[in-house]
This record gives sequence, structure tokens and C-alpha cells, in this order.
Amino acid sequence: MFDGPPAPELDPAERLARLRLARSRRIGPVRFQEALEHFGSARRAGRELPVAPEAEIDREEARLARLGGRFLVWGDPDYPAALAALADAPPVLSVVGQSALLARPMLAIVGAREASLAGRRFAAELAVALGQAGFVVVSGLARGIDAAAHEAALSTGTVAVLAGGIDQVYPPQHDSLQRAIAARGLLLAETPFGSPPIARSFPRRNRVVSGLSAGIIVIEAAEQSGSLITARLANEQGRDVFVVPGSPMDPRYAGSNTLIRDGAILVRDANDIIGVFGKPQRAPQVTEKPVQICVDTPTAAVLEALGAVPTAVDELVRRCQVSAAAVAEVLLALELEGRLERHRGNRVSLI
Amino acid sequence: MFDGPPAPELDPAERLARLRLARSRRIGPVRFQEALEHFGSARRAGRELPVAPEAEIDREEARLARLGGRFLVWGDPDYPAALAALADAPPVLSVVGQSALLARPMLAIVGAREASLAGRRFAAELAVALGQAGFVVVSGLARGIDAAAHEAALSTGTVAVLAGGIDQVYPPQHDSLQRAIAARGLLLAETPFGSPPIARSFPRRNRVVSGLSAGIIVIEAAEQSGSLITARLANEQGRDVFVVPGSPMDPRYAGSNTLIRDGAILVRDANDIIGVFGKPQRAPQVTEKPVQICVDTPTAAVLEALGAVPTAVDELVRRCQVSAAAVAEVLLALELEGRLERHRGNRVSLI
Repeated sequence: MFDGPPAPELDPAERLARLRLARSRRIGPVRFQEALEHFGSARRAGRELPVAPEAEIDREEARLARLGGRFLVWGDPDYPAALAALADAPPVLSVVGQSALLARPMLAIVGAREASLAGRRFAAELAVALGQAGFVVVSGLARGIDAAAHEAALSTGTVAVLAGGIDQVYPPQHDSLQRAIAARGLLLAETPFGSPPIARSFPRRNRVVSGLSAGIIVIEAAEQSGSLITARLANEQGRDVFVVPGSPMDPRYAGSNTLIRDGAILVRDANDIIGVFGKPQRAPQVTEKPVQICVDTPTAAVLEALGAVPTAVDELVRRCQVSAAAVAEVLLALELEGRLERHRGNRVSLI
Repeated sequence: MFDGPPAPELDPAERLARLRLARSRRIGPVRFQEALEHFGSARRAGRELPVAPEAEIDREEARLARLGGRFLVWGDPDYPAALAALADAPPVLSVVGQSALLARPMLAIVGAREASLAGRRFAAELAVALGQAGFVVVSGLARGIDAAAHEAALSTGTVAVLAGGIDQVYPPQHDSLQRAIAARGLLLAETPFGSPPIARSFPRRNRVVSGLSAGIIVIEAAEQSGSLITARLANEQGRDVFVVPGSPMDPRYAGSNTLIRDGAILVRDANDIIGVFGKPQRAPQVTEKPVQICVDTPTAAVLEALGAVPTAVDELVRRCQVSAAAVAEVLLALELEGRLERHRGNRVSLI
């Protein structure tokens, strides 16, 4: 989709000048592009404007290198082409991990932090199917939908776009997920090394999530949610917006349903997305079994492990990593609701 | 929408001839119209074709009159205009009840017999809102969505289209609902008096449901469900098709979501429907409180009665018409799930 002749390498002096221009005060993405256009190059811009000192760039690059990372400068051959085409493309990206992922077609999965178990499970299913079809799954490493999508796509390829600097662990409970993505996927940040994630960084991060991607998939967007902002940005960027519908009685889908009503593409399963783009030519080798998604209450863990096929209660306790008493309590509740069937040999199944 | 100059009264001899032609063997709706066109009138057709004897019509009309009903013949001034315009309009309708309802704008609500409580509740909410906006709610008197819609629209106006003859009680558990509609709404049947409802009558009944209506609203249509057939018929008839979305993980919405994907109008609430048609000029007087919808398990009954405002457990037992022990069991289950909060004075609320 974004193929073309490979871009030539940037002249090293121009590349350094772009880094210095990008890290200057009062130079955002749009003014960066304006300066390049006005002066013809970052080198000439640097002669006229008060740009960041070379030592500051060296210091940041050294800290980044200690994390195993590097810069991608706007104009570098491996700067992602789809993102580079935006009027407000980030002048500099910091990346840690498998940057080869950026050459593959990407799709974003975004949604609610306070997502339901069903929503997270659906995000994981889509991420697995899209990964197996050859797409890299992009998201924002937030709780809920984002984390479920990243985890499920770890083995096929996932890119996490951070709101803070590439070294910032956020949210704290995703420390190990963030490490796993740094090792097997790719972490990517627009803000400089060391910058804490602040409120206004999140919508800017969202434009990078959609900007990297050929399309975005929205799961559980309430009214006035951040995912709706991402959907609007994606639409403005010319990206396809795919939306998973939900009951009008569930406020977690109020924004989602409005997006569909207003023309977004309804998603029933991954084929509704793959059908739009076709399968990328180079599907990745899938070497590992799909990652189990996190579940955070005993009820959720037990429901996750239960199915129509009878399962031994002991097996449930082991798989759910929850106390036997907690499992028993959940099973009792399900039974009282008429959702659980008991079988011989202390086995249970969902009705 | 279907306004125009009032149709002239049919000549009594032609009207009787149409009844005799309609009740003849091998004459369906399409051949009825062909015969009228070919011979110029039913009277002339009756001279050439072996039509039903007058005595048979008299007998049916007498039986119908004993139920308080009458015939509406294609061409009668009060035969519904929208239905009359179909190429396969029923030649004769039997009606019992408030036939003035047929002059008002109608919307159909259809959906699954095995509907969820949430689906039935949503059907009832839509029916109340559409009724208050001035629309007559049409449906097929089936279990589930149909019954919820009829019940909720009893006080504002509802038309039940039967698959069997107008005297046939079907399904048996809707005996009292059918009586209530005969008294306060309208029962309508295409098949002759005394005909039992047989399998092939149901899709034919569905074309009448949509044919009467300016649009149909589909709630909980699984794959390959009857509601999908109704939606297809409605679309062929040029009626607007409105669909309530649901989770792709809920098979009760598989057909619904496909309809939306293929261009049906997504419904978030009644305003999404009213906005398309505008409010009819003559909104009915609403004289009664909305009818409570049927619930059929203790859990459903208790959930129906519970809300965010604390309710006394005694009050729940009384309102749910369920034993105190059953209510206590349901409350325990909800509590174990973390969905119930207990308050002083033996009161409870949903979280």
C-alpha cells in the first residue's frame, strides 16, 4: 500500500540538523515542516534559528542507545512511509525493538481502558487473526483493549506507541508487557527521552497510532471517549475506520454505534477487515501459541477458562491461578444464575 | 405518507365477486390481481372461472361477525393503502378490533422468538416511544420480541398480523395478549377463518407485517432467522429497514449485524427512527402507564425490578411474583458476582 522506491539515505549533516531542529523550543511537527520548506533544508534552518545544541542530541542518542534504541528522523529510509505522509508527521521517532516491523502493513486496534472481558477477548481474537493474516498490530499500550491487542499480537508483531518518552513505563502495571514488546515487538515514542507522559501527549500519541496504520479498529468506545478522537483523526488522515458494534443498552458502545451510524465499517470478525485490504504478501511465521489475555477478577478468570465442554474443578483452580475457595464461590454464583451445569467427577461446564 | 383522495366505495356486487374470487382454489394474491386485470373486474372473472360459491362467503362472514370482525377487500376505502400497493397484496383481510388504526402510520417491530430479556426490554422501550410519537406498532404476535412490542404498544395502538385464520389462537400462551389486542388494538389475518397456522403461512404473514408498515425494526436476528426474511421482503417492498446492533460475540445478533453491514439503518434509540419519518400529525392520547413486559425466570424478574435506587426485598418479592426463597437465591448470586449492593432496612440495589 505504501510501497515505492526506497528513499535515499539522508546526508548525515542534514540528519543531525533535523534532530537539532526537532528538539528546539517552539518547534512542533508542523513548524518543523514549514522550516524545512522555507529554508530548503534543516542545515540552512539551523543557521537562522536558535536550534538545540549538538551536545543535547548526543546525550539523548546515547541514553537511547543504552536502551538498545535509535532515532528515526523524518526522511530516513526506514521512517514509516504512511506516517511520513502526514502534514504533522513527527520529525523524530525514538524506537526500541524490532524496527523491521515498520516496513510491514499495520492496523491499529484501540478502545476503552475500562473494557469488558468480552471486549478484551474480542480484541485479542482480532489481533491474533490479523497477525496471522500478516498485519502488524499497533496500539497505545493503555489498559483494556490496547493491552489485550498487544499481548495477543506479540508473536506475530506489534507496535506500541507511547505517550511519554521511550524510557517511561506507563501505565505502571504494564511494565512487563512493555518489556516484552521492546524485546519482541517495537516501542515507539515521539516525545523526547525522559519526558513524562502528560495529558496533552495522549491525543498526539493517538494521531501516531492511526498515522502508522492503514486502518483502525475501534472496540468499546463510549460517548466522548478518547477512541472517538482517534477515530476522527484516523478519518481525517484518510484511514479506514472499522468499528465493533454493541448493544445500544451498553454505554460502552454508545460511541461505537454512533461511528457506525455515521459511516464507519461494521466489524463482525477479522474477515470484515482483511476483506478490505487483502492479505499482505509476506505473512509472518507464527512460532508460538497465542498469548492468553489477562483477566483481573476471579469471575472473569473462571469464565475465561470455562466452556461448553466439562472441565474438572481442580483444573480450573490451576488454570485460573485463583484460590479453590474463590473458584467455588464463582461456580456457585454461576449455578444460581442457571449458567453452570455440574457433571460427574467434579466437572463443570457453561450452559 | 400514504395519503391521497379517499377511495370510492366498491360496488357491492363487485365486492362480493372479489371475495368469491379470493376464496377460490388456486387463486393466490398474484393470480387474483392478474384475473382482475385480464377480465377487467371480479364479476366478469366470476363468469369465466370456477369461483367459490356465495354461500361459502356468507358462512365465513357470519363466523367472522360473531367474533366482532369483518372483511377488508382489496379496493375497499379502508383497505390499508401501503399494503394495497404491493404486487402480491392480500385480496382479502379479516380484521377484529380497532380498524381505524389502519389509517395511521405504522412501523413494524420484529425479532427473535428466543429473545433475551434485554432484547425484549429494548423492543418494549422502542414500542412505547414510537407509540407516543404517533406510530401504530405492527408485529406478528410471536413469542419474544413480537409480544414485547405488542404489549408495550397496547395503549397507543398495535396491529397483530396472524399466520392462521383470525379465530386461531397462536401461540397458545398468547391467548390473553391476543384477546387484549382484539379489544384495544387490531387483529388482522390474510388466511380464511378457521385455517390453522401452517409453516408456509409464516413468511407470507411476514410480508403483510412489512407491507403494512413504512419501515421495519429488527431486534435480535440470528443468522438464517425468519426476521432476516422479513427484512429482505421489506427491502424489496421499498420499506426502510432499521436494525438494533449487538455484540459480534452474541449469535442472536449475527444476522442483525450483517443487515447493518449491508446497508440497513443502525438504531441506537427511537429517535433514530422518528428522525427518518418525522412525527405523525395526530399523536394519540396516552391514557395508561406503559405495560410491564413479561419476564419468565426468577433472575429475569428480579433484574427487571432492580435498579440503581435501593428497593426493599419484600417489595421485590411482591412485584416479581416469585417466592421469597427464589428472590433470596437470585440476590445472593448477584451479590457473589459483585453486581448487588445491600442497604439498611433490607433494601438492595444494582451496582
